[in-house]
Amino acid sequence: MRDVAIGGIGQTPVGEHWDISLRHLALRAIQAAMADAGVTRADALYVGNMLAGQLAGQENLGALIADFAGLRGIEAYKVEAACGSGAAALRAGYLAVAGGMADVVLVVGVEKMTDAGSADATSALAMAADADYEASQGLSFVAINALLMRRYMHEYGYSRDDFAPFAINAHRNALHNPHAMFHFAVSPERYAAAAMISDPVNLLDSSPICDGAAAVVLMPVERAREVAKAPVRIAASAVGTDTVAVHDRRDPLVLDGAVLSAQRAYRQAGVGPQEIDLFELHDAFSIIAALSLEAAGFAPRGQGVRLALEGEIGIEGRIPISTMGGLKARGHPVGATGMYQIVELVQQLRGEAGANQVPGARRGMAQNIGGSGAIAITHILEAV
Amino acid sequence: MRDVAIGGIGQTPVGEHWDISLRHLALRAIQAAMADAGVTRADALYVGNMLAGQLAGQENLGALIADFAGLRGIEAYKVEAACGSGAAALRAGYLAVAGGMADVVLVVGVEKMTDAGSADATSALAMAADADYEASQGLSFVAINALLMRRYMHEYGYSRDDFAPFAINAHRNALHNPHAMFHFAVSPERYAAAAMISDPVNLLDSSPICDGAAAVVLMPVERAREVAKAPVRIAASAVGTDTVAVHDRRDPLVLDGAVLSAQRAYRQAGVGPQEIDLFELHDAFSIIAALSLEAAGFAPRGQGVRLALEGEIGIEGRIPISTMGGLKARGHPVGATGMYQIVELVQQLRGEAGANQVPGARRGMAQNIGGSGAIAITHILEAV
Repeated sequence: MRDVAIGGIGQTPVGEHWDISLRHLALRAIQAAMADAGVTRADALYVGNMLAGQLAGQENLGALIADFAGLRGIEAYKVEAACGSGAAALRAGYLAVAGGMADVVLVVGVEKMTDAGSADATSALAMAADADYEASQGLSFVAINALLMRRYMHEYGYSRDDFAPFAINAHRNALHNPHAMFHFAVSPERYAAAAMISDPVNLLDSSPICDGAAAVVLMPVERAREVAKAPVRIAASAVGTDTVAVHDRRDPLVLDGAVLSAQRAYRQAGVGPQEIDLFELHDAFSIIAALSLEAAGFAPRGQGVRLALEGEIGIEGRIPISTMGGLKARGHPVGATGMYQIVELVQQLRGEAGANQVPGARRGMAQNIGGSGAIAITHILEAV
Repeated sequence: MRDVAIGGIGQTPVGEHWDISLRHLALRAIQAAMADAGVTRADALYVGNMLAGQLAGQENLGALIADFAGLRGIEAYKVEAACGSGAAALRAGYLAVAGGMADVVLVVGVEKMTDAGSADATSALAMAADADYEASQGLSFVAINALLMRRYMHEYGYSRDDFAPFAINAHRNALHNPHAMFHFAVSPERYAAAAMISDPVNLLDSSPICDGAAAVVLMPVERAREVAKAPVRIAASAVGTDTVAVHDRRDPLVLDGAVLSAQRAYRQAGVGPQEIDLFELHDAFSIIAALSLEAAGFAPRGQGVRLALEGEIGIEGRIPISTMGGLKARGHPVGATGMYQIVELVQQLRGEAGANQVPGARRGMAQNIGGSGAIAITHILEAV
């Protein structure tokens, strides 16, 4: 197995891109990543995407995007793991380079959700849940997260307002990220007054429906040292899964898939949570941010919210999260999200995160989750 | 890179499985493959599927099926490449084992198309075409193939009836395959009288809408020699792509993606077409069978139909195709098809193909195509 590096990164702003198509979005991220890596060709392209079939009537995105990016002929296909599709595609690309099957691999996560109505998007997102046992009972994806949040509050004695720090932190960090969807601060008062979506999940607990694409170029570390200006090494790449339906879980408040995924990643990298400088987690909803912090070993059970309340998730805190805005405020174009997390982590490890720079960041972790914990893909990156 | 073997195979009958769900279908194929391989666990599961989102409202199949198969926790995600999804998932599994990241990998292709109406299925299949430039113009997938077939007839001077040998051969071979959907013979008269679907494509040029699942267990060859009763080696695994929209092609009658894919596979295996004993090709439509024979080097340009007319595609012919019925008569549950091809190839190389046994088969090739040639995934298998 070869050491794999990220040699280049690219991203589009997250937002409502009604003027360009899905393939254009992907192209922009790919072109930026290739230019950043100093490459003009690739051996393979893996596309992370969840909803193009349902919302755009388009599958076969691998060949479609490879051709549109001027790479006609190369190996290319789509990888899907619900909202974890982006990082799952990175995992596929990592396997190809680490195993020696390819020397230059593109990975792009792309999603276009706003061309459809929000009812269509909500219905499409329910495909991440269990169609037979959850969605068919009328449970939307936000409703599942509302049940989890209510249970967490009940079991550990938190109030709804205790979750405010997640939104406040994410929106504060997004202010200085030009690629973020939202550029407004959130105060505790604003959080408390936010419209209720699915009690107790309010508007500011929820990531937005949006469009975006983010890409990386992978190559062996040796080659990246030669051609890339600031390569970042993939120290670990790991996947863990759990049941899709929450009621089948061992314990609904423990994301076993995320635990497995993080443990496998720590083992591969030879480090533990205390050696991680920042954590780009999957804050699709505030409750998932809390559960992720616990699953990855940054807080004991029931203490994820406590960690946030104590101010430890900020840029200067013990474990900075959502440092460029996270899913909450950078935005959550679902199949692209995992790749945005990676691109932002690379920005941090290169020292290019501007006002959001985590001081002295040398090693970071990203965890992308598909479904309400059904799959978690964890990557640990290190400055070379 | 390690040598990879198929240690076990499993398949469900292809047909209309209205009584069981998609996850049950997958489970049956997986259980059969694991029993055949003599394993009770796996490190990872890759799922080939195209239509579950559109037709069943279910994505996130990796985690869903891993859990249902009693493998909760393992790495698992879906790979999609339209009708090439099955073999694309095999490619992903191959990369994981060859690269040394996993020792026992399950790959399952699964599709359930008949629970939806045929109009829904036709509409869903159009997602394999270019949504912006083909499907949105009213071109269904069968219509695209009709244009290709008409052009082929025009350019090379064939009549419609010249395509009959493909259906006749496929249906003859399916007669003795208990897993095939159709068990009736086709005569030239029956072919000539078949209902027209999209002129010149008639009912017997078209593969059926159906359900099915097929699976394999992958492992390093050394390990397979120890535990599996009849391992088969993957001598080559290769992907080639082309434009999705046919009008963008260099030449609509040359499947450049299939050419690239076959050439890469031949190079990896160190063989040429003359050393392939049988070829499981992607006969979703008769015209694609002809173009595939040409793309893979078994017939010169315009001579694919000639090869069939000369009787060279039968079990005893120069290059047997669709030996267990092919997409045409075994059936074409789209995301599962690529894995059915592989399972059947293994049956042949083990000498377990019964009445359809290709005499002395030692090396076979399977080529699974997504879209009307947008992606082709080629595998060459060899008896160990």
